Amino acid sequence: MAADRRGKAATLALRRRLLSSSCRLFFPEDPIKIVRGQGQYMYDEQGAEYIDCINNVAHVGHCHPLVVQAAHEQNQVLNTNSRYLHDNIVDYAQRLSETLPEKLCVFYFLNSGSEANDLALRLARQYTGHWDVVVLDHAYHGHLSSLIDISPYKFRGLDGQKEWVHVAPLPDTYRGPYREDHPNPAVAYASEVKRVVSSVQEKGRKVSDLCPLTQFGGSPVSCAVGLAVLDVLEKEQLQAHAACVGSFLMELLGQQKAKHPIIGDIRGVGLFVGVDLIKDKATRTPATEEADYLVSRLKENYILLSTDGPGRNVLKFKPPMCFSLDNAQHVVAKLDAILTDMEEKMRSCETLRLQPEAALLSPPLGECALLLVLGDPELGSLPSAGSFVPQQAKPFVCKHFVLSDDPFPQSSFNT
Amino acid sequence: MAADRRGKAATLALRRRLLSSSCRLFFPEDPIKIVRGQGQYMYDEQGAEYIDCINNVAHVGHCHPLVVQAAHEQNQVLNTNSRYLHDNIVDYAQRLSETLPEKLCVFYFLNSGSEANDLALRLARQYTGHWDVVVLDHAYHGHLSSLIDISPYKFRGLDGQKEWVHVAPLPDTYRGPYREDHPNPAVAYASEVKRVVSSVQEKGRKVSDLCPLTQFGGSPVSCAVGLAVLDVLEKEQLQAHAACVGSFLMELLGQQKAKHPIIGDIRGVGLFVGVDLIKDKATRTPATEEADYLVSRLKENYILLSTDGPGRNVLKFKPPMCFSLDNAQHVVAKLDAILTDMEEKMRSCETLRLQPEAALLSPPLGECALLLVLGDPELGSLPSAGSFVPQQAKPFVCKHFVLSDDPFPQSSFNT
Repeated sequence: MAADRRGKAATLALRRRLLSSSCRLFFPEDPIKIVRGQGQYMYDEQGAEYIDCINNVAHVGHCHPLVVQAAHEQNQVLNTNSRYLHDNIVDYAQRLSETLPEKLCVFYFLNSGSEANDLALRLARQYTGHWDVVVLDHAYHGHLSSLIDISPYKFRGLDGQKEWVHVAPLPDTYRGPYREDHPNPAVAYASEVKRVVSSVQEKGRKVSDLCPLTQFGGSPVSCAVGLAVLDVLEKEQLQAHAACVGSFLMELLGQQKAKHPIIGDIRGVGLFVGVDLIKDKATRTPATEEADYLVSRLKENYILLSTDGPGRNVLKFKPPMCFSLDNAQHVVAKLDAILTDMEEKMRSCETLRLQPEAALLSPPLGECALLLVLGDPELGSLPSAGSFVPQQAKPFVCKHFVLSDDPFPQSSFNT
Repeated sequence: MAADRRGKAATLALRRRLLSSSCRLFFPEDPIKIVRGQGQYMYDEQGAEYIDCINNVAHVGHCHPLVVQAAHEQNQVLNTNSRYLHDNIVDYAQRLSETLPEKLCVFYFLNSGSEANDLALRLARQYTGHWDVVVLDHAYHGHLSSLIDISPYKFRGLDGQKEWVHVAPLPDTYRGPYREDHPNPAVAYASEVKRVVSSVQEKGRKVSDLCPLTQFGGSPVSCAVGLAVLDVLEKEQLQAHAACVGSFLMELLGQQKAKHPIIGDIRGVGLFVGVDLIKDKATRTPATEEADYLVSRLKENYILLSTDGPGRNVLKFKPPMCFSLDNAQHVVAKLDAILTDMEEKMRSCETLRLQPEAALLSPPLGECALLLVLGDPELGSLPSAGSFVPQQAKPFVCKHFVLSDDPFPQSSFNT
């Protein structure tokens, strides 16, 4: 196959010619050509093995044989849109409903997380008869026009804030206005939301005609794949595995925090973990350049990791769910070595004076059902609304939208 | 598999419980359960064979073995997002560019036709610095908020027309203001567009940050499938086949038009053909109920067809490209029989007095490069802008957006 024959430079040259430069690559200075994936590993054209802590699609691991087989079996028989009766779509909806609270029992299947959030917005407007939206600061809800409008992460650099968009502070107990030393940060942040909601002037506009025909979401093959992913999750007990490995990873990272003053905070759920890097303890200034440098050093060590957060200073761990205890140990050991090396270099230059501090974890904020569209956990604190999503179950939930008769339907996580 | 075991009624009951009622089914009065597809045929749970003239996804035929195999081979090796270098995405872009005018040479891969049109809108706004949009009347551009706003087909029943949306008349030479008896309908319609454009007040707003990360569009598997579809198109010479079968179908339908006064107009390109049904020749009033009845009678005869157009009176033929001369003959013979039967029933009631007329085909309108977002061919006349798309090559073009340095990027067709 061509994938094995063409050199990386040739692929890059072709890509630069044929694809828009706004279609970004990971590691743009020295992008990687990945030709194979297996479990939590990705392989470049030279055969080098990388541990994938970025991931995005392959929820239960790259090329899981049961998932691949399910797609192939259904592809051989039928793939079409959702306007004919088919068992896969109802079976999948039923299986998903078993993982959700009873009230979340009606399903819409879309082509992407962005399409799901766009529909969520239309549903909420249809139900409430109101147009205005309250969003969390720094949130990212997708790449469509309607979602850029409600994503402070996006609109700040572009069109600016629309008059019907109201921004509530991110319930960030590490860097936000109410921190871990506050008597009750959950109540304090919820009060902010209440204040924003009460300041919103009500406007009614008719919206309707909600569910589109989709060619990908809800198709027999998509649903067969979704069902196979659920099967693998159960069979391999991946939720328990992710909880276990995730705790271990957080523990290891906590030890690093006690050792390396650049680590300001560690937070997360399951295998979705953020490491907040700071310039110094007092100001908690985001260590953006350091995070960037660290990611590039980790890549040299065959570990794929990315940064996120308003300050682009949070190391984001989001590996496939089969990520192992060994992987956690290996990744943290490399992180330790690189941080130690960085500190030695810094000490010799005396450019930074960082001090170790005790481990302080930001607990997730309590219930905030008033928020229509919740923040992206990748961008700071983890919002509580995600808790109904099976832990780390993003790839199949994030493409679909789940609605109950609740007045404030909750959008699923974005990837 | 469950698909073969559960009865239609049970599937329908589950669907009613688990899916929103706004997710419509074809033939809602008596929906079909489809469990298998092969070429241009679909099979229900009883084994009954239907000729698929609706289609949507399976461009070169349902479950084409080469397409299925390409998906399987790539799924076994790697499927991930487009932020790593991979040969499939550049190979696919290169192959697509060979089918397009030289200026259309930069590619964006999205998750759906709707996502592509949303991005097209953002690109056009970014490029021009203007916000307003000129659209064709009755056009449908997708199911997202931003696209409903610019789709008269949609917004008329919902929010109404935004002040920044300007509607130009559909270049319909059968029922529009300038018809086939006009000396130059192309110039007349283009002048209408010019008038609309010149009336638009210019507004500048900054838009940017154009290309999203996508998990489906541009992935190694999507591109492998796209490449396989192109291979099959070439190998089986499906464009020539579609042109040939399409002409034959139009010819057969033309004979029916001379025989059955309800057929007012026949128009189309390749295998994408519309049959405009009218109540009478003088007023050309859409025969909406008759079209509906006809579709339901055809379904009883195992032919799947749908209606479209502002009056829901246009029979829409959009079969997979392997649709054969025999299929065309069979479908038209059934249509003839049903129309004859309908006429006999009508004559006995004397409710309609329709007269045959000479075959008058609406030629596609000339170049209209001023239009930013062009009409959907399903909804009336076929817009000229679609002509750069390989004939009937929708399923792989429609999910992607093609941009040149042209000041007016053209959105791909919607399905």
